[in-house]
Amino acid sequence: MAVNLQVQLARQPEGVPKPGDFQIGQGPRPAAGPGQILVRNIYLSLDPYQRGAIAGTFGPARLNQGDVIMGRCLGEVVESHHPNHKPGDIVVVESGWQQYFAVDGGAAGLVRKIKPEAPLSLYLGALGPPGLTAWGGVERLAPPGLGETFVVSAASGPVGSVAGQLAKAKGARVVGIAGSEEKCRLATQKFGFDACVNYKTADWTAALKAACPGGVNVYFDNVGGAMLDALLAELAAFGRVVLCGFISQYNVTGARATNNLGPLIAKRATMKGLVVYDFLGETDQFIKAATALWKQGKLATHEDRVAGIENAPAHFVKLMKGENVGKAIVALAPEKA
Amino acid sequence: MAVNLQVQLARQPEGVPKPGDFQIGQGPRPAAGPGQILVRNIYLSLDPYQRGAIAGTFGPARLNQGDVIMGRCLGEVVESHHPNHKPGDIVVVESGWQQYFAVDGGAAGLVRKIKPEAPLSLYLGALGPPGLTAWGGVERLAPPGLGETFVVSAASGPVGSVAGQLAKAKGARVVGIAGSEEKCRLATQKFGFDACVNYKTADWTAALKAACPGGVNVYFDNVGGAMLDALLAELAAFGRVVLCGFISQYNVTGARATNNLGPLIAKRATMKGLVVYDFLGETDQFIKAATALWKQGKLATHEDRVAGIENAPAHFVKLMKGENVGKAIVALAPEKA
Repeated sequence: MAVNLQVQLARQPEGVPKPGDFQIGQGPRPAAGPGQILVRNIYLSLDPYQRGAIAGTFGPARLNQGDVIMGRCLGEVVESHHPNHKPGDIVVVESGWQQYFAVDGGAAGLVRKIKPEAPLSLYLGALGPPGLTAWGGVERLAPPGLGETFVVSAASGPVGSVAGQLAKAKGARVVGIAGSEEKCRLATQKFGFDACVNYKTADWTAALKAACPGGVNVYFDNVGGAMLDALLAELAAFGRVVLCGFISQYNVTGARATNNLGPLIAKRATMKGLVVYDFLGETDQFIKAATALWKQGKLATHEDRVAGIENAPAHFVKLMKGENVGKAIVALAPEKA
Repeated sequence: MAVNLQVQLARQPEGVPKPGDFQIGQGPRPAAGPGQILVRNIYLSLDPYQRGAIAGTFGPARLNQGDVIMGRCLGEVVESHHPNHKPGDIVVVESGWQQYFAVDGGAAGLVRKIKPEAPLSLYLGALGPPGLTAWGGVERLAPPGLGETFVVSAASGPVGSVAGQLAKAKGARVVGIAGSEEKCRLATQKFGFDACVNYKTADWTAALKAACPGGVNVYFDNVGGAMLDALLAELAAFGRVVLCGFISQYNVTGARATNNLGPLIAKRATMKGLVVYDFLGETDQFIKAATALWKQGKLATHEDRVAGIENAPAHFVKLMKGENVGKAIVALAPEKA
């Protein structure tokens, strides 16, 4: 019998997940029923939101032991009983962490066809949902003005790196914040940011002030917590803050808080929450614009890739600890079977 | 010699001010120099921002013993050496808490001429800076849609009562939050709010939920702190929050904080800081619109008035304790001398 390896929950993580919180399980390879397609997954995307999906703070429900971990893959259609799809098509599917996935070919929220013009795994990163998230913030919620200072945290990550490069393409001055010298070099040398501040140095807020002498016009926040507080203190008048994530707080229970709301009034600032789903309808427009930038060399990408579904748990733990650099990808299978 | 009674700082208040933190002093009545006007103050406006002005967290500097308390009065020009003003003109002046004030007749930030169409003291309240503050929030930063639920805290105060009535005039459903049954009755019976919740009752958040079954589309926050947290929890999707003041925290040192930022992302909400100075250029437009509503009976007002400058300190303490109801005014002198 053809098998389908899966990563399942072994036990609910406490705090930062450990590899032992996951287990490798298997089921029979699914078959495509009427109207369905069968997808052979090629790349698995690891993303911070999956921490909340496990705990039930994001998505439908808290996972139980044996449940497949929620997640997104890029794969190849190997069997189709749906008119929109044929074998060989490339799709992005909300399949969970597993090798094969059968799904209704018309389920818009679960499957999306790709016409690749760039390396396939980018459609899970810079040209996929993380990139669309950045697009929503930079293009819609808080577009920076020409020459304005745009700051983004988690600057070397898949959302932050695209946000900064989109802002740069719109004529802003871009300052990144990241957690290591290596990540900062990536931001300035590969992604072309004007500056990057390593928040793990003792005097990082002084370095931030120095990098933003006119204050911060737009802050794209992927981190929350103390970093948000520090950035609120540096806002320029009429500054704008996009709240995209609270990765500093995904592994703790309790509050998403800020202790520094005062500048929001004093600087007549605006703070907006960003949820990528609101921009799904703009996916084609985003991919077109981002692909053009990528072809011009203005949208660089960086991956942290491992091979083999059995290595997904350790790779996710690395992501949750902030130890990865770039977009976390697990190669599940060769691109050509 | 003609005297000029003043309220001066006796000592820096700790926490909620006490009457003994103030002293009544006097100086010679000032004379109008070249280009100046001399104003006989009639009404003194007491406002929460004055607490910050004393401490130096708002305005130019922390006050020292003997300094006149910062504040705004409506008065009559009694002497003019400036072409824009003549004796008998009514003006609003940033005079501080005193009986007489001499000022450059062209100092736009310090003196503003009024052409009264309503009772004079309203130009310090519903038709003055508190009303303009409400206008900035309701008309500019977060206009409610037709039938949307608009919630305002400190609902019986001079900003909150106008904000709610402007929102009502724009077709919103208006829910107030206030600190007593008396204030809530004022909000619903005099100001025409659809509902009002007394936050000093044990089950006030349940009452809030019941009053906002579809969630809160716009929250005009005059209070901050735990009330802001509670309202963030009730936001509807794409809700908007205007941060206008943190009166819950004016008498404490330390953070302007929220422990409930999560809904900002989850509800794709927007939070904006409001500073009335940004809308000074719209003063004439605001007064025209608000006067029209007042004449139609759609902008009710309520004052908490005492007479005599010597009673200003105790009246301010009452305001700071939230024990006053309506706009706090001190009548310094008869309207007609």
